[in-house]
Amino acid sequence: MRTFRLVIACPDRVGIVAKVSSFLAGHNGWITEASHHSDNQSGWFFMRHEIRADSLPFDLAAFRQAFAPIAQEFSMEWRITDSAQKKRVVLMASRESHCLADLLHRWHSNELECEIPCVISNHDDLRSMVEWHGIPYHWVPVDPRDKEGAFSEVSRLVREYRADALVLARYMQILPADLCREFAQRVINIHHSFLPSFVGAKPYHQASLRGVKLIGATSHYVTEELDAGPIIEQDVVRITHRETTEEMVRLGKDVEKMVLARGLRFHLEDRVLVHDNKTVVFD
Amino acid sequence: MRTFRLVIACPDRVGIVAKVSSFLAGHNGWITEASHHSDNQSGWFFMRHEIRADSLPFDLAAFRQAFAPIAQEFSMEWRITDSAQKKRVVLMASRESHCLADLLHRWHSNELECEIPCVISNHDDLRSMVEWHGIPYHWVPVDPRDKEGAFSEVSRLVREYRADALVLARYMQILPADLCREFAQRVINIHHSFLPSFVGAKPYHQASLRGVKLIGATSHYVTEELDAGPIIEQDVVRITHRETTEEMVRLGKDVEKMVLARGLRFHLEDRVLVHDNKTVVFD
Amino acid sequence: MRTFRLVIACPDRVGIVAKVSSFLAGHNGWITEASHHSDNQSGWFFMRHEIRADSLPFDLAAFRQAFAPIAQEFSMEWRITDSAQKKRVVLMASRESHCLADLLHRWHSNELECEIPCVISNHDDLRSMVEWHGIPYHWVPVDPRDKEGAFSEVSRLVREYRADALVLARYMQILPADLCREFAQRVINIHHSFLPSFVGAKPYHQASLRGVKLIGATSHYVTEELDAGPIIEQDVVRITHRETTEEMVRLGKDVEKMVLARGLRFHLEDRVLVHDNKTVVFD
Amino acid sequence: MRTFRLVIACPDRVGIVAKVSSFLAGHNGWITEASHHSDNQSGWFFMRHEIRADSLPFDLAAFRQAFAPIAQEFSMEWRITDSAQKKRVVLMASRESHCLADLLHRWHSNELECEIPCVISNHDDLRSMVEWHGIPYHWVPVDPRDKEGAFSEVSRLVREYRADALVLARYMQILPADLCREFAQRVINIHHSFLPSFVGAKPYHQASLRGVKLIGATSHYVTEELDAGPIIEQDVVRITHRETTEEMVRLGKDVEKMVLARGLRFHLEDRVLVHDNKTVVFD
Repeated sequence: MRTFRLVIACPDRVGIVAKVSSFLAGHNGWITEASHHSDNQSGWFFMRHEIRADSLPFDLAAFRQAFAPIAQEFSMEWRITDSAQKKRVVLMASRESHCLADLLHRWHSNELECEIPCVISNHDDLRSMVEWHGIPYHWVPVDPRDKEGAFSEVSRLVREYRADALVLARYMQILPADLCREFAQRVINIHHSFLPSFVGAKPYHQASLRGVKLIGATSHYVTEELDAGPIIEQDVVRITHRETTEEMVRLGKDVEKMVLARGLRFHLEDRVLVHDNKTVVFD
Repeated sequence: MRTFRLVIACPDRVGIVAKVSSFLAGHNGWITEASHHSDNQSGWFFMRHEIRADSLPFDLAAFRQAFAPIAQEFSMEWRITDSAQKKRVVLMASRESHCLADLLHRWHSNELECEIPCVISNHDDLRSMVEWHGIPYHWVPVDPRDKEGAFSEVSRLVREYRADALVLARYMQILPADLCREFAQRVINIHHSFLPSFVGAKPYHQASLRGVKLIGATSHYVTEELDAGPIIEQDVVRITHRETTEEMVRLGKDVEKMVLARGLRFHLEDRVLVHDNKTVVFD
Repeated sequence: MRTFRLVIACPDRVGIVAKVSSFLAGHNGWITEASHHSDNQSGWFFMRHEIRADSLPFDLAAFRQAFAPIAQEFSMEWRITDSAQKKRVVLMASRESHCLADLLHRWHSNELECEIPCVISNHDDLRSMVEWHGIPYHWVPVDPRDKEGAFSEVSRLVREYRADALVLARYMQILPADLCREFAQRVINIHHSFLPSFVGAKPYHQASLRGVKLIGATSHYVTEELDAGPIIEQDVVRITHRETTEEMVRLGKDVEKMVLARGLRFHLEDRVLVHDNKTVVFD
Repeated sequence: MRTFRLVIACPDRVGIVAKVSSFLAGHNGWITEASHHSDNQSGWFFMRHEIRADSLPFDLAAFRQAFAPIAQEFSMEWRITDSAQKKRVVLMASRESHCLADLLHRWHSNELECEIPCVISNHDDLRSMVEWHGIPYHWVPVDPRDKEGAFSEVSRLVREYRADALVLARYMQILPADLCREFAQRVINIHHSFLPSFVGAKPYHQASLRGVKLIGATSHYVTEELDAGPIIEQDVVRITHRETTEEMVRLGKDVEKMVLARGLRFHLEDRVLVHDNKTVVFD
């Protein structure tokens, strides 16, 4: 069922819901899902509606025009998207296949509503797996002495494939600041720890040294500061003294891929709103 | 902060949210929490608003009068409650203290917004614990040859204390059908299994025989059919071959008290709507 | 690191551990993992040792001969296996790919220590995915009027490929009793509910009707009685009133594949001992 | 059932289990529970046996004498304890009652095998609750200008009551270094975050600022470095954008009391071994 998704953030005050829902009802909009959140601390209001496209007399452009006065009246940050226009998500990976294989299978079995125009990797290892899915694979090695060259090629590919979002599926390279800014709130990374614990390299090794009893993973939007962007989703798995670092890596993989897939799904369905470096996730 | 809670269930159609939110906005109502659910299967719509009482020009009676025409127009089942009018919850227990002690402590530390006018038990064991909290304790033994006599006394007490709800905190006796009907959707039981597994007596014993790897607990509204009422909340805990039935009982206690406390909290805050023997829980 | 795995079940009495560990120490065996369990209810004792193969002066045959007198003295049910001799696991699937793809990827990335000599399916849908992994795919349609014919072909294939174990990765067909008996404790099924709830067909549909707040999956050894064999592993995921049956199916897939993969891993590493239709899992 | 608990840590080498189990079998010891762990990283071996006291011809002193040569041969750190000699645990609290009430109820209902000779608090608020349990309550205010005076009184009480262990049940004061050293591996603290995230003050406030999706609690042995001691147990609970800091505090309480109670239980049953600032927990 094709839906429009109306996503709004604005300073909270009386009458927002009434105005928006009256607008929708006035055009006979059939709301299939509605979510609201008033944040007391920031004084902001967040709202997401999913509306049957066939119930409205609008296409997106007409909707935008008709809704603009309301948006202005309430100083809204807002967007409307069409479930029929699938987002174009470029996946980036390195040598580890678990997150990539998981996303590819979910896409292949129609669980993820997106297009995957290409996969970019700094190694050539996963080419055959990707190409079996009928997806172009681009090997862009990252020479430590010429990272700029590599990322200029990455930028070119991202542009060429008209990417709406990037997913760092254990890419293991730090994106340059300009790419982070250009794709603000549209680059999703999976970090293999329960942030803010164990920022940076070798988090399972760090976890083993500290002797924690749970290990985790975090999917978050990438910002210029390493592992500090808005958290979309997290989860953990129990470990004991018996698990070696290698076994923690194995157990962690399952958490990583689940947490990344859930985070990406929320993003694709326009369920994530960012404010003050934190997320509202209307799941 | 004192709030009114407006809880609505009705057949789904376009315009319900617009009507209700316009009504609220028209009276300057400051909504602090709003939840909606459209159930595709049944075609019903469910809605809960929490509104700052001081933002509305109404008391409950005036609200009811003003809202009645809308309710009628949309064939709503609805209620409005005032957070300042705490529900009166009679706790019923037997010999096991864990659920009762947990609820009493939550009440004592102001975590549960209710009054506990009295505790009724078929044994006298827990009197001192209850009375330390300043709550009257009624020992109503249940003679297997005269259950009717016992429950007629229970009914009398429930009436005398003007109970809004009953909580069977491991009461271990089956309530008579007339009491179930009188307090429909207002009697909460905790069953010590993950329903529908292990209905009836000795669920941990049954779980041990079957060799399950997780045990659980279920809080549900009591209906005339044993352990078959609408489920409010469930949770589980992992076990292994090492746990004896006695250890399953110990581990299960922690799940039972958490699941009962969460279920009761949802009920007290008018977050539970029942339809087709299932619950919508706006948590 | 190559290890021998010594797995023992016997009536409990004083001196078993001393005898076994003295035997191992007497031959300079380097124990890397040791697990014990005394079951009070049945009076049985269970034990698993993992020993560095290079620390022992034995091959498997010599070990068996040397250990036999101890095994006889204590009436042991026992086996010794060699981690270097990978089990041959035939996967059986139907149309749903999630469990099969998950197991294939774990195998492909060397997470599962087994061989997969072939995949058998009653449909031809998943051929390409399987063949990409370099694994033969056999399409054996199951005609409801001639199930015997189909399963005689399955038996032939299982024999031809010298299978040590079968995994029903959402195979959706009931194995004939003789195959169940022949492969007792060597056929692993994934059932898409938290057993013993929702035995049989359409468990998510059943779960939706009952209104449970958690759904689950169970991996178990197959016996002649449907969904009643010894449980190896279970897990659950939280749902709410918002999840439709379709969404429960989607969420359940992730639990199914995790629970099946964990159950299979336990089996492959000889961590599962069966007694009285229950399992001891030395994880 | 009265048991002896033999707990051993030593450098790993061949023959430890054989020697110990032969010693036990030679004296007809009936082992009810046995756990082993070889730590590859440190090269240490850890072991815990629970043995029916009535099966051995020893009291503790005689056991110690008989076992000493083995302990010396393998350079063991070891202890043997008698389940009949309950540990004396002094609880320390401040104003928050949830952890204290939880531990008191578990003790009262015979779930925790220990004695609680007294409770010490820097406030007088919880006196009545403690005294209802028949336990002496000592109010030792901590004047920020004379912490030394307060802790000298605490030390005196701990000595007077012959404490075997201290539990900081949300005590909110930092113990002086000498007390930490004197009771090394015998002071258990509950920290209201998932360490190492959010060390120090106001962890829920920190968690809210960072926008995490799970909050947790950690029970650990206290060392001189704040919140850095060996972790015994941890757990988490899921939160969303809806939870205010106040609601995180409420949800966190349930995790804190569970994690503290589990950690204390492991300690009381001699299930925790400390090595390299990490724990082996034979649960």
